[in-house]
Amino acid sequence: MAQETPNHTQTVAGWAAYDSSGKIDPFIFKRRENGVNDVTIEILYCGICHTDLHFATNDWGITMYPCVPGHEITGVVVKVGSNVRKFSVGDRVGIGYLAASCLNITYGGYSKMIVADHRYVVRIPDSLPMDSAAPLLCAGITVFTPFKDNQLLNSPRKKIGIVGLGGLGHVAVKFGKAFGHHVTAKQRLGADEFIISTSADQMKHSLGPVLELLKVNGILTIVGAPDAPLDLPALPLILGKRTVKGSTTGGILETQEMMDLCGKHNITSDIETVTPDQINHAMDRLARNDVRYRFVIDIAGKTSN
Amino acid sequence: MAQETPNHTQTVAGWAAYDSSGKIDPFIFKRRENGVNDVTIEILYCGICHTDLHFATNDWGITMYPCVPGHEITGVVVKVGSNVRKFSVGDRVGIGYLAASCLNITYGGYSKMIVADHRYVVRIPDSLPMDSAAPLLCAGITVFTPFKDNQLLNSPRKKIGIVGLGGLGHVAVKFGKAFGHHVTAKQRLGADEFIISTSADQMKHSLGPVLELLKVNGILTIVGAPDAPLDLPALPLILGKRTVKGSTTGGILETQEMMDLCGKHNITSDIETVTPDQINHAMDRLARNDVRYRFVIDIAGKTSN
Repeated sequence: MAQETPNHTQTVAGWAAYDSSGKIDPFIFKRRENGVNDVTIEILYCGICHTDLHFATNDWGITMYPCVPGHEITGVVVKVGSNVRKFSVGDRVGIGYLAASCLNITYGGYSKMIVADHRYVVRIPDSLPMDSAAPLLCAGITVFTPFKDNQLLNSPRKKIGIVGLGGLGHVAVKFGKAFGHHVTAKQRLGADEFIISTSADQMKHSLGPVLELLKVNGILTIVGAPDAPLDLPALPLILGKRTVKGSTTGGILETQEMMDLCGKHNITSDIETVTPDQINHAMDRLARNDVRYRFVIDIAGKTSN
Repeated sequence: MAQETPNHTQTVAGWAAYDSSGKIDPFIFKRRENGVNDVTIEILYCGICHTDLHFATNDWGITMYPCVPGHEITGVVVKVGSNVRKFSVGDRVGIGYLAASCLNITYGGYSKMIVADHRYVVRIPDSLPMDSAAPLLCAGITVFTPFKDNQLLNSPRKKIGIVGLGGLGHVAVKFGKAFGHHVTAKQRLGADEFIISTSADQMKHSLGPVLELLKVNGILTIVGAPDAPLDLPALPLILGKRTVKGSTTGGILETQEMMDLCGKHNITSDIETVTPDQINHAMDRLARNDVRYRFVIDIAGKTSN
């Protein structure tokens, strides 16, 4: 549950959904004091992830209102606890899906400020803009993890296909290219070839067409969760000794590793920046997949639109 | 296509399906002369695999009649080509799914004799009976491959579940035990525990219940091919970072490796021996899954029933 203890003394302006209509309105709430292990971050930007839509409208039946979405957060450290050696005031940092592991639900990044244990904070390389780096905290790490888990960071010249070129897929293409692979994607985005025409919608119906594109021993990693079960035909799986793997977001160490590699290779998300009063409009467009490729809220008003 | 070239000079008695009724009747045909790279094998036993049913009745639309099924063959070498150093007359050998890789369809093991390139012949350890070793050539290697591919031969004390305890599954349980794992199966067969109640039929409907039994990063290997696609729910796959892998039969090297390990650990199939005139009855029972766990045809009449 959202925490409102005696320690929650800091007033914060944010934006919340108040009910399952999912409509986002201004919301004033309290955050905890900056503890000895905490850093307080002035939020500059927050990406709008499709998950935010699901939470705002209680699609999964677990939303507690008021709900402040947002887990693709970048900002600047403004306060540091006495035990924190890793960060200093002024540092450029990010917070992603994990801001605590106590299983409490917290208020997210659609807000001006956040307090987080320093162990859940990653550093944003100086070379990356704070706005287009924000989606790396969820979209980025979600597609980075399969590259890492399948030993694709340092073994170039594999053939990689990306199915579904949205907020996640377009970053996956950039990773694939940066790590020296031959990348095939649905739409043009600097990829070497464009063979896979299967959309994420089609994938809902059957994994067969995608499996047939894989080599023997090929691996299909799934990072999205359609509502209906996927159709998995056994023969292309068995005869090709192919693998279908699930993958979710990564941990903090992987997230920092990804950030550092993004800094090195100059990888960010392609974004469209919106002001906080445009959140509802952006979410409507996101629900229609009308975005290339990620909305990012300019929380602090630093971007001139 | 079945070969009947001028070199096909050896008359062989066998048993074949003549049409899609699948009824098996005696069939006299020719096999090729023993070439310089060949061995000729007097067949002693041949297992009845469920695939034989599919081929006899043309379930997959690729059967050429007359069809002599059978790819779980054990027998004794009776002739050796001049280039063959590996085998001698009298050797106890086996032939499995692969008897050539020229893509021609050949007559199978429901017959008194077979000629095969020596590279497709494996040695049967002296410690194994020829009748109960026969199913290892297909059922055995099919479930051995996932153990090998997942590094389970020499890393004991993993927890392994076997779903579907038939001709393949019951051998898988024996492998699991022999390799030092904690094996969970549907029915009692020396396994340590019996938790999985999901039958192969239930698995046709959804992989969800089986996936939920896997640890994080757990692997589900599928070796059977139900007609309908499997239902693969995305959330247990993604949140558990689980893997669904296809696996098929193995190559000759793996088959010999498996045979040698079966000799070492005294692993064979549990069988019910039938005479050639009982093939149709056995196939009827197999179609109803009424066998514990594999029918083996006593081709040469060596077994007293």
